[in-house]
Amino acid sequence: MSPQKSDRRGLLIILSSPSGAGKSTLAKRLMQWDETLQFSVSATTRAPREGEVNGKDYFFVSEPEFRKWVAAGDMLEHAHVFGNFYGSPKPAVEAAIESGRDVLFDIDWQGAQQIRNSALGPYTLSIFILPPSIPELHRRLVSRGQDDSETIAKRMQKSWDEISHWDGYDYVLVNDDLDETEQKLKTIIQAERLKFAQQPRLSDHVRSLQSQFEDLS
Amino acid sequence: MSPQKSDRRGLLIILSSPSGAGKSTLAKRLMQWDETLQFSVSATTRAPREGEVNGKDYFFVSEPEFRKWVAAGDMLEHAHVFGNFYGSPKPAVEAAIESGRDVLFDIDWQGAQQIRNSALGPYTLSIFILPPSIPELHRRLVSRGQDDSETIAKRMQKSWDEISHWDGYDYVLVNDDLDETEQKLKTIIQAERLKFAQQPRLSDHVRSLQSQFEDLS
Repeated sequence: MSPQKSDRRGLLIILSSPSGAGKSTLAKRLMQWDETLQFSVSATTRAPREGEVNGKDYFFVSEPEFRKWVAAGDMLEHAHVFGNFYGSPKPAVEAAIESGRDVLFDIDWQGAQQIRNSALGPYTLSIFILPPSIPELHRRLVSRGQDDSETIAKRMQKSWDEISHWDGYDYVLVNDDLDETEQKLKTIIQAERLKFAQQPRLSDHVRSLQSQFEDLS
Repeated sequence: MSPQKSDRRGLLIILSSPSGAGKSTLAKRLMQWDETLQFSVSATTRAPREGEVNGKDYFFVSEPEFRKWVAAGDMLEHAHVFGNFYGSPKPAVEAAIESGRDVLFDIDWQGAQQIRNSALGPYTLSIFILPPSIPELHRRLVSRGQDDSETIAKRMQKSWDEISHWDGYDYVLVNDDLDETEQKLKTIIQAERLKFAQQPRLSDHVRSLQSQFEDLS
């Protein structure tokens, strides 16, 4: 079944997980699967890592600039993590969902909670990805080779903090197998798009059935 | 993706539609797709039609017997339609969902509403199938050759009554194409089984992650 589109309002699809659980890979695969999906590029005050592209991986902004966005109400959610700010710029998201495109968020539990509690809450589909095991999560962080052991310990603590908020999500998947988890995510997104609440065109269809019924009687 | 099972509680999957919209065919296809699915055979006081098998198509019972079931609280839902009683016997459903099997119901909006409002309401997934058009629905009823024109007129009136309750369901599908609708139903059922609320085993997994994390620290 290919992705379907109608004149419905777009969904905010939130993926959360501890880092190392496969979330970024899964997000990339979903973007490849459905070209109508729009990725919400976060803004951050942290410095770019090697290879990261401004506007693609993140919007790299100064702290005063970030604060200006927040003050203007232009961040859908934001948080302070390890001394840096992170947030989801609102204007791009609003434009996408108004035009019926779903937006994919790769954000943590704090961001997910803020979006669920916002005016856009009813249009949210939230999915949490759990790792198969903690040693596996640790192994993945170490094998990245990006961080020293102190930073890895901090990241593991942050991972546990993230995992401990697993139960606030609509769906929770254990990422035992990347292909299987990808397939489950697609199933969930496809089903969500079929929901009554997501299909404003249905009312038109029922109205036309009603006039056909009256013509018949 | 093949149907998945865990030690979760089963779902009550309700299919409703006006007669002639393809519901029975779709229900049969779902039963073939997933052999763990259990079909809820309704009890009725109406006489069997040619070819109908007691215990398979319906449980054909007398009116006193039917009333005894209702009085004992052993009908999950029941209704009086065209002079006959119809109802879903509760014991078989309870046994199935306790053992983690999903139960499929082919019932009308009144039955769906009664089940949603019952103690089993939270375990319900309800899907309404709309016909592509009223003339098509009429054509299908006529081509069955089962009924005279007066009965068909009564059925069409009942069909409209059914359609007018379309908006109380979790999902609403227009059955333009039987194969496509079948695929959508499978997607919806698969996604529902992945829901947080449907996966009690997840708590065990998170507890084991927690002890692994404590071992690591």
